[in-house]
Amino acid sequence: MSEEFTVTPWEVKGFIDYDKLIKDFGTQPLTDEILERVRRLAGELHIHLRRRIFFSHRDFDWILDKYEAGEKFILYTGRGPSGHIHLGHLLPWFFTRWLQEKFNAKLIFQMTNDEKFLYRHDLSMDDALKFSYENSLDLIALGFEPERTVILIDTLASKTLYNIAIRIAKHVTTSTVKAIFGFEDSTNIGMMFFPAIQAAPCFIESVLQGRNIPCLIPAAIDQDPYWRMTRDVAPKVGFYKPAQVHCKFLPGLGVGGKMSSSMPETCIFTIDDPDEVYRKVMNAFTGGKPTREEQRRLGGNPEVCTVFHYEYYLFEDDDKRVKELELMCRSGQLLCGECKLELAAKIRLFLTEHQKRREDARNAIDKYLYID
Amino acid sequence: MSEEFTVTPWEVKGFIDYDKLIKDFGTQPLTDEILERVRRLAGELHIHLRRRIFFSHRDFDWILDKYEAGEKFILYTGRGPSGHIHLGHLLPWFFTRWLQEKFNAKLIFQMTNDEKFLYRHDLSMDDALKFSYENSLDLIALGFEPERTVILIDTLASKTLYNIAIRIAKHVTTSTVKAIFGFEDSTNIGMMFFPAIQAAPCFIESVLQGRNIPCLIPAAIDQDPYWRMTRDVAPKVGFYKPAQVHCKFLPGLGVGGKMSSSMPETCIFTIDDPDEVYRKVMNAFTGGKPTREEQRRLGGNPEVCTVFHYEYYLFEDDDKRVKELELMCRSGQLLCGECKLELAAKIRLFLTEHQKRREDARNAIDKYLYID
Repeated sequence: MSEEFTVTPWEVKGFIDYDKLIKDFGTQPLTDEILERVRRLAGELHIHLRRRIFFSHRDFDWILDKYEAGEKFILYTGRGPSGHIHLGHLLPWFFTRWLQEKFNAKLIFQMTNDEKFLYRHDLSMDDALKFSYENSLDLIALGFEPERTVILIDTLASKTLYNIAIRIAKHVTTSTVKAIFGFEDSTNIGMMFFPAIQAAPCFIESVLQGRNIPCLIPAAIDQDPYWRMTRDVAPKVGFYKPAQVHCKFLPGLGVGGKMSSSMPETCIFTIDDPDEVYRKVMNAFTGGKPTREEQRRLGGNPEVCTVFHYEYYLFEDDDKRVKELELMCRSGQLLCGECKLELAAKIRLFLTEHQKRREDARNAIDKYLYID
Repeated sequence: MSEEFTVTPWEVKGFIDYDKLIKDFGTQPLTDEILERVRRLAGELHIHLRRRIFFSHRDFDWILDKYEAGEKFILYTGRGPSGHIHLGHLLPWFFTRWLQEKFNAKLIFQMTNDEKFLYRHDLSMDDALKFSYENSLDLIALGFEPERTVILIDTLASKTLYNIAIRIAKHVTTSTVKAIFGFEDSTNIGMMFFPAIQAAPCFIESVLQGRNIPCLIPAAIDQDPYWRMTRDVAPKVGFYKPAQVHCKFLPGLGVGGKMSSSMPETCIFTIDDPDEVYRKVMNAFTGGKPTREEQRRLGGNPEVCTVFHYEYYLFEDDDKRVKELELMCRSGQLLCGECKLELAAKIRLFLTEHQKRREDARNAIDKYLYID
């Protein structure tokens, strides 16, 4: 993987070398030792840990120390609501849901509709708010319980957020956000301030409860710059540094890069017609050979196959079956068409059920929202 | 007046050449024509207009056009609550109260406790909030009615303010606030964003009422940079540009500059012991001569006399009496001691009554506060 790649909160492109990211970002790899501790405490290991989809962290071991010492932690993650949700967005949410269940942790979920409005010239406040609600339905549909899940839509919670954010902002210079986020003098002053708004939910429970509460952020690694800044400031305002656990990006159905809303044919959206999914999956890029005959003779290459990636990242829990798929592909036993049909059926089933839960969530959403 | 002087939102020093400020800031002088219109509409002219304490404006004539066409305007002014109120702070509030009464205008009053917290290393959020309440008492004590006066303490109204501020911030680059306010890369990101929070109250009534409402800002001229920025952005977000009317600074009791909390001996605070005021006034800088004999023979110089300034700016409504004081001083008829006693008595009377109304305001403050 020698190609150029870019990972920032606004852009992810190219074939990503995750080992290099760990080095560049200065994070820690998730070690076998940490996974063993998680297995012991949770009673099992989520596939995203077994398969190192979550692969990197900061202070996850410290969170486990705290947990073992009887100190509960909160989970915090979020979403920039500029459009509908696709499977790539769901990836870390599945794992977050598992963490919530296994560690009985409260989740704070931030919808950064303010940032999307500030960043995108073509997005109105109404649209960013509409997508905040729509995206919340997807979150709720994954099974997060209202008793321990709080959704902060920034513009509806901005009294609480702003009051925390200014405590953070006082310790963050313009130079710092320029260096971390690549901001320039042409950046608008809302964007300049926004990193403090994104940092605020790390501390919201500590502020509301009046005591220091550890926070673990499960999220894709492109968000790491925000937390680096937040971790620098936390001790200055009297809070624990937020811990993090980072995941890889779900590849798109095309060649390379992460699943991206800007290329809708390469994405499976949660609101896609389940039948439509067949077409998208049948058009997916695979590691197959040009002809059936060659495939039988030479076998396929699951490493570059997006269909295999989807099974591996999301749709096949059974490690044995994953290994089987890989071997059958390599040996030429399994043809791409068969593999695609298997995946498409799984995705169709998931979407059908998800969409039902998603509609049910419309009646429940008020129980999740934190409104000032 | 060839001495160096500085006027920014954070610093006012030196002997101020107000004609030069009009030129430097690009504002308009308050003409006789405008004053005549105000006299006709209000039935009288406030001493701050007659004496050109309010001396400069932007679009005040446009506000009068709107008013004559039956379109009501709101008043907006504010205060950075970093300490107690002195007479210099009250100066524009007296005139604002008069405008409210004569034009039946709603007043939006902003307490920028967030900015004071962000700017000053030594000020806690608790202190800035405490002073917001204390300063509100002084405002209320001047007779502003709860039916048409809204006090926004920023951290208590930050949901509403932030939602308006991001609409403004989207159109303001970091370069712009650097150029206008002298911010640098070492400035914290809360301060960078703050100009959008200070701009927001111009539009709060328009947002809440869902229609465009003209806004007039009576304030000292050092705040002009904020409104220059706001006026640039207003049309881009669909609002009228806020109009302004600018006042001079009440001089301190010492030599030169405005009354400043950082030199408490030169200030009369509203919470000062009324008897204490005698001492401060008796120590004031005047235009008198070193000896009684010289004063009788040569007369004093009221132009540089802080005691005369206080009569002129605040305590002697009667223009004839002001002229009389001036002539008696110049001719040596009036000695500084007599003049000081007259002023001290007036200030003592004012403070005694103000402090009573100020204490009564503690029970009324809730009727004024806008809390999200």
